[in-house]
Amino acid sequence: MADIAIGRGKDARRAYGLDEVSIVPARRTRDLDDVDTTWEIDAFTFDVPIIASGMDSVVSPATAIALGELGSVGALNLEGLWTRHDDPDALLAGLDGLPDEAAWARLREAYAQPIRPELIRDRVREIRDGGVVSCGAVTPNRVEALADAIVAAELDLLVIQGTVVSAEHVTKGNPEPLNLKTFVRRLDLPVIVGGCSSYRAALHLMRTGAAGILVGVGAGSSSSSRRILGMGVAQATALADARAARMRHLDETGVYVHLISDGGIVTGGDIAKAIVCGADAVMAGRPFAAAAEAPGRGWHWGQAAVHADLPRGHRTPVEPVGTLREVLLGPAGDDAGGSNLVGALRRTMALTGYDSVKELQKADLVVHPR
Amino acid sequence: MADIAIGRGKDARRAYGLDEVSIVPARRTRDLDDVDTTWEIDAFTFDVPIIASGMDSVVSPATAIALGELGSVGALNLEGLWTRHDDPDALLAGLDGLPDEAAWARLREAYAQPIRPELIRDRVREIRDGGVVSCGAVTPNRVEALADAIVAAELDLLVIQGTVVSAEHVTKGNPEPLNLKTFVRRLDLPVIVGGCSSYRAALHLMRTGAAGILVGVGAGSSSSSRRILGMGVAQATALADARAARMRHLDETGVYVHLISDGGIVTGGDIAKAIVCGADAVMAGRPFAAAAEAPGRGWHWGQAAVHADLPRGHRTPVEPVGTLREVLLGPAGDDAGGSNLVGALRRTMALTGYDSVKELQKADLVVHPR
Amino acid sequence: MADIAIGRGKDARRAYGLDEVSIVPARRTRDLDDVDTTWEIDAFTFDVPIIASGMDSVVSPATAIALGELGSVGALNLEGLWTRHDDPDALLAGLDGLPDEAAWARLREAYAQPIRPELIRDRVREIRDGGVVSCGAVTPNRVEALADAIVAAELDLLVIQGTVVSAEHVTKGNPEPLNLKTFVRRLDLPVIVGGCSSYRAALHLMRTGAAGILVGVGAGSSSSSRRILGMGVAQATALADARAARMRHLDETGVYVHLISDGGIVTGGDIAKAIVCGADAVMAGRPFAAAAEAPGRGWHWGQAAVHADLPRGHRTPVEPVGTLREVLLGPAGDDAGGSNLVGALRRTMALTGYDSVKELQKADLVVHPR
Amino acid sequence: MADIAIGRGKDARRAYGLDEVSIVPARRTRDLDDVDTTWEIDAFTFDVPIIASGMDSVVSPATAIALGELGSVGALNLEGLWTRHDDPDALLAGLDGLPDEAAWARLREAYAQPIRPELIRDRVREIRDGGVVSCGAVTPNRVEALADAIVAAELDLLVIQGTVVSAEHVTKGNPEPLNLKTFVRRLDLPVIVGGCSSYRAALHLMRTGAAGILVGVGAGSSSSSRRILGMGVAQATALADARAARMRHLDETGVYVHLISDGGIVTGGDIAKAIVCGADAVMAGRPFAAAAEAPGRGWHWGQAAVHADLPRGHRTPVEPVGTLREVLLGPAGDDAGGSNLVGALRRTMALTGYDSVKELQKADLVVHPR
Repeated sequence: MADIAIGRGKDARRAYGLDEVSIVPARRTRDLDDVDTTWEIDAFTFDVPIIASGMDSVVSPATAIALGELGSVGALNLEGLWTRHDDPDALLAGLDGLPDEAAWARLREAYAQPIRPELIRDRVREIRDGGVVSCGAVTPNRVEALADAIVAAELDLLVIQGTVVSAEHVTKGNPEPLNLKTFVRRLDLPVIVGGCSSYRAALHLMRTGAAGILVGVGAGSSSSSRRILGMGVAQATALADARAARMRHLDETGVYVHLISDGGIVTGGDIAKAIVCGADAVMAGRPFAAAAEAPGRGWHWGQAAVHADLPRGHRTPVEPVGTLREVLLGPAGDDAGGSNLVGALRRTMALTGYDSVKELQKADLVVHPR
Repeated sequence: MADIAIGRGKDARRAYGLDEVSIVPARRTRDLDDVDTTWEIDAFTFDVPIIASGMDSVVSPATAIALGELGSVGALNLEGLWTRHDDPDALLAGLDGLPDEAAWARLREAYAQPIRPELIRDRVREIRDGGVVSCGAVTPNRVEALADAIVAAELDLLVIQGTVVSAEHVTKGNPEPLNLKTFVRRLDLPVIVGGCSSYRAALHLMRTGAAGILVGVGAGSSSSSRRILGMGVAQATALADARAARMRHLDETGVYVHLISDGGIVTGGDIAKAIVCGADAVMAGRPFAAAAEAPGRGWHWGQAAVHADLPRGHRTPVEPVGTLREVLLGPAGDDAGGSNLVGALRRTMALTGYDSVKELQKADLVVHPR
Repeated sequence: MADIAIGRGKDARRAYGLDEVSIVPARRTRDLDDVDTTWEIDAFTFDVPIIASGMDSVVSPATAIALGELGSVGALNLEGLWTRHDDPDALLAGLDGLPDEAAWARLREAYAQPIRPELIRDRVREIRDGGVVSCGAVTPNRVEALADAIVAAELDLLVIQGTVVSAEHVTKGNPEPLNLKTFVRRLDLPVIVGGCSSYRAALHLMRTGAAGILVGVGAGSSSSSRRILGMGVAQATALADARAARMRHLDETGVYVHLISDGGIVTGGDIAKAIVCGADAVMAGRPFAAAAEAPGRGWHWGQAAVHADLPRGHRTPVEPVGTLREVLLGPAGDDAGGSNLVGALRRTMALTGYDSVKELQKADLVVHPR
Repeated sequence: MADIAIGRGKDARRAYGLDEVSIVPARRTRDLDDVDTTWEIDAFTFDVPIIASGMDSVVSPATAIALGELGSVGALNLEGLWTRHDDPDALLAGLDGLPDEAAWARLREAYAQPIRPELIRDRVREIRDGGVVSCGAVTPNRVEALADAIVAAELDLLVIQGTVVSAEHVTKGNPEPLNLKTFVRRLDLPVIVGGCSSYRAALHLMRTGAAGILVGVGAGSSSSSRRILGMGVAQATALADARAARMRHLDETGVYVHLISDGGIVTGGDIAKAIVCGADAVMAGRPFAAAAEAPGRGWHWGQAAVHADLPRGHRTPVEPVGTLREVLLGPAGDDAGGSNLVGALRRTMALTGYDSVKELQKADLVVHPR
């Protein structure tokens, strides 16, 4: 596949971003009402194939419940403000009107507080009590330490998420690093794990027994990983590679592992394009940070932004575009594309002639650099 | 044709926009006076191969007559302000000086009024009485309901136009959706139908019996479909694919179906490039919205901008560039390219050595990204 | 060569601009003093391979003499202000401080005055009396009418120049259009003719008996032909095609016809790149319009800008960068690249290891989009 | 390798810049602590594979010592202010607050003073007395004249550096130009020589007996060589070509010559990408000019900017980002990427699974134009 000669001594492949591809309408069209956006993973069924990212500016227990009621699901960051503080909403409200630097300093301080396992239990219970699927996100570094609390909290769906997560973490000092293959199977709840961005990395993550894998490295709007670290694969290519890994894993094991595209979703068209590249669902942060109910209160940031010695990302203002319902299901008040994500996805499916997410994966693509 | 590997599990084709191609002058040049821009479709002959788009900011009965007198033809939107209101000119004049939002709110309200069949009749009659070819545009959703009024009005040329129009609309709830193949043949007037943007979609639209098809999905300046919906094929490629479909359809049936390139025309050079890619004529909105006589009075918008829950496009100001005559036939007062479209097309034909629109289709192209 | 499928029904070639290529230093370097930039065409030898364009903002009789003294040559526009007015310098000085529109109106008026053959004679004589090679530029339309005056004036070098000039101009009304093949051979002075931008067009122009051909269509900074007319070939490709035509013509006839790259020169590096693509010399306007002595007095415009009904280009301000000597031979006062063009060319030749213009044509290129 | 047809008469290769490539995470990840960034060249071992450029705005004796203490090495410009003036720090401090032009004039004057061999001795001794490896940079033009002073000063590591340096400098006037092959071998200290940007040029430089070669022509942020001279090869390709030359030279001689990537480093990710393309280490200027201790005091310029008749580059302001320690080793105060270069490099190595610089060279790349 490495068919580009960078020079005489090094080859490479061309990678494509979602912004470089476009879906080709097929010869059929369909009624909007005939289109089905349902997403089923493990025992759960969602009306729409969208997970709100496990970021404190995006998902609180309250918005997790609201998202569940709208047919989506929000991943609560189990290492963020909600599991370190009794009242993060008050804490975040206290940042209103502060100069950017002061707000940021106070936030960093808030993240320096310890994670309290009983808050994991309470937050998950709050979401479950809301009558929706509970979903939480942890990093590979902390997942073992928090596993008991997570299981005790009866979380429904666990996301293990880092910039890059591999099934084979090598360590010299520590004789027993986290072995995802045994860890994931030992857990009694479905796991989504990632990010990854290559065929082999995706294949090995699938072999951990995960129900789904996150595809994407530093593709999100809140991340500057690519520039600072010089690594990552453009998202359309990362998905198409992981799709091939999914086929091979299905062939070898009979198990269909879901691909969740993580990063870079702005419009419903982006969701459609990720699906055509191979995704079964997408994880999105920025669009929900722009909802009126978003806990970030008009600001968006990722966990990597509070890293102690190498922050990648920063706290950026987001213009509110409407309620969570409007962001997901519309109506859209303007043509910016940031609201009615599902309406746009449905329309694309109808106009291109596909009636389910799985069918839409078959659509033709063209490459057209912008 | 899908020769690009997006990744291991998905291929694609490269698509090209009109802004990426350029016409190669051949070894001959010609006199400007020897160049013929005539376009014949069905029983009609036009001096210039340009249809003004069926948009309320572009075509009113008065400008349709003016365009006809200049050798072009304007498509009146039969679902727009002119068939819902007695005096749209007054209505639009009333927006002058209003804040953008207030003007927009009043416009949306105006579009919420019902379509009145008797106005279809009156408007078409007004155009016919002007001594020019009458042309009107409707959407596939409403074409059946309005068919009787259209036929009764003795319209000369009908455009059935939507974001994507397929010959095979699939519906579950409704046992009898619009069947374009029977509908178009049943009508007693020539039909142009689209948009489409792929070989197969174009081929199937040709098989409906249409005299011409519109090629282009969301390519117009007033549209944000591509970004919001994630679909569409860059225009040069869409035309080149439809051109192959035209050849196949001609081979199979002996019938030559015209390709009308819809969207993205800014200069006469753009018209020339669309023709070289395969178009027999172009449909253009924005250039005519910039005419002094344009009903939009310095504003431009498409019907998709007033969509209830997923607007795609908005009302944008346009700088007037001269009279309709100047826009079409010159003289151009500056070098911006928005006036004397036909003069530029003629000059390109003369300098590249082709003496008719059909001959110009043979010109060589180079790809040169800007 | 047409190896790109625009779509199923149309192919194209990729064309490259000078701004997309870069010269690869070879394994040798040379002393700056060992580098020779001499250009010989017909009986004339110039120290530097640069012709100043036949534009009224660039070449007056006075600057033609100054350029000749510096080792270059300036083409006087024989259809411009200097052959229509007794004192164009006074006329242009009178524009100083006028509002742009008023200045433009007065200029258009000045161009509406008739060409006076006796002024052709006087201007050419003035240049010849300055002790330098006299060079003048005319359009194909007027060259026959002005031929007697040109020959009588004992012009040394004639440039026949239009947007596109072909050896085979086809005309219906006029039974005897200009036949360049007989006309050029009949003239008793060396002719440079163009522009052209393809292999075949270049080959046919060479067959007229011209000493050199101009390569480039609308590539100059003062032109908006490409956007308005939709035609043209990016300059690196146009040169590489014409180079192949030169080889074929040399093989068929034993005659070496010079390629003069016309348009888009900003820096000495651009000159070097044009040469590597195949040019024997370049024609440049904009760099000389920025000289303190330039007749345009801080403004630059091409003849196409005063076209009656389809102007392509406009009068644009240029920031003076130094004397003509500084523009050509330096020293450069800053690193903008617009002065010491020849110094930069010499340095490139020295650093890449080539000691003559003809040798430099052999250098390797890389493509690197900016 | 020249597989692109610019046109019928000229071919080229595609070259890639570091900003067009991205590293693909492999299937393994590693602990940050397990990653080793050591660089060994000749008898010297450095903690980090980074040389600070021999530019007066970047390296003074004091910063050379500081860099050495941090595990890096700074090359002192042996033809710059420190070898022409007794107190360059005072001289540079005197520019504070001066208008740009006045500061520039004073700097040019300062560079017009003669180089004093005894200052070479003193500056090198000062660095050596600081307990770190002493490294100095000279141009090929002056290296012979300064060789005795350099050897007498007991310099540890010599960089011979020019825009383009070839092993085969051809000269007509001077019968005995610098012969790098004999000169380098005669010197009793390890030499790094360059820049070069092609396979053959790199191979010939390796054959001089140099310990390392500089790869890169005009790639630095302070240079405008590429635009003015029209030459150079994008850095990823230059490195990949030189890598092949290193393999061949190793095969022919058993000697491993180091590649030092020179130019264009902004972030730690850029360092990682240069290594993956083939570099053993990088030379960087701009990041260190932004250190609080930088001698340039908030300004950055290269020697080429003070060239007498063809300056390439200028004195540009740089925003300070922290101490030298913070620039190299962090912590980073923001996510701009300009600080904690080594932390970013280490993280990239850990996340992509490589534990040494030499291993990192094996990583996969994708091409993704930005």
